[in-house]
Amino acid sequence: MSSYNESPEQIAQATEGYVMQQTMLRIKDPKPSLAFYENVLGMKLLGKYDFPGMEFTLYFLGYEQDMPKGDDKEKTQWVFRRPALIELTHNWGTENDDSFSGYQSGNEEPKGFGHIGISVPDVYAACERFAKYNVEFVKKPDGGSMKGLAFIKDPDGYWIEILSPEGITEIIQSQ
Amino acid sequence: MSSYNESPEQIAQATEGYVMQQTMLRIKDPKPSLAFYENVLGMKLLGKYDFPGMEFTLYFLGYEQDMPKGDDKEKTQWVFRRPALIELTHNWGTENDDSFSGYQSGNEEPKGFGHIGISVPDVYAACERFAKYNVEFVKKPDGGSMKGLAFIKDPDGYWIEILSPEGITEIIQSQ
Repeated sequence: MSSYNESPEQIAQATEGYVMQQTMLRIKDPKPSLAFYENVLGMKLLGKYDFPGMEFTLYFLGYEQDMPKGDDKEKTQWVFRRPALIELTHNWGTENDDSFSGYQSGNEEPKGFGHIGISVPDVYAACERFAKYNVEFVKKPDGGSMKGLAFIKDPDGYWIEILSPEGITEIIQSQ
Repeated sequence: MSSYNESPEQIAQATEGYVMQQTMLRIKDPKPSLAFYENVLGMKLLGKYDFPGMEFTLYFLGYEQDMPKGDDKEKTQWVFRRPALIELTHNWGTENDDSFSGYQSGNEEPKGFGHIGISVPDVYAACERFAKYNVEFVKKPDGGSMKGLAFIKDPDGYWIEILSPEGITEIIQSQ
């Protein structure tokens, strides 16, 4: 990166209106993934966009009180102004391709991306409910040394941290 | 996933207060990464948490108008209630380890995670400014068939989509 210099005020002005809008994860099969993000995690499906020429579909999900309103154009613009959405990319055909070996979570070698994290009011209550859905746990809330913090897997094996503001703060302050 | 059944109302109630709080990326060296996320992308550093026993540090950044207030406990709890933060994980020593081969972006084989995406008011203006910082582009706004959409790389090579709500909507509607 160059030494291009801007004052904090110049940076704030130049980046005004920037929104951390999406985290994109490739998925093998939209059926179990949508069931997981909608039913287990409680996100809403806000937009589904097909790209037939390139044979993929994008699904945008998030914790929004409202659903997009207006015509298709207004709805789509609304979606892309929302922060903190999950974008699931489905390349057509992987769901029926026996030779497809699946996607990598980033937590095996070679590592990179780690996880997304959901802040919840009560980690133990959340995890009891996830267990009823037979969600796979990487770490249960009472496993390991960090109590009150859990990691689950989505249907493709991506890790999702389940934390509470109070619980994670205790862990951080005890280090 | 099991067929555990809840009505939409039960799901909404069980997941009330859930926040898509973080996207975690491992980084080799905090110096260039913080310079990039703070100066180039204009995020604020909201929290830095050391875990000396496990020899790593977490950095939380995001587009917040305010900075955390109160004592350390209150500040930390505040951070973990915020949506749409980036969590950068630095395992101590990688920045000086010549044998460390770096992290994987998820866009080479084996694929998985794709990118984070920043919604901006003007993709072309944003990219002109990024170029002054010598940011590496995967795709410039006028490259390829999708005009007005860019992809840049962060210092570890993770991809960041730069989109505008109006521009991406035009692209989606033209498919």
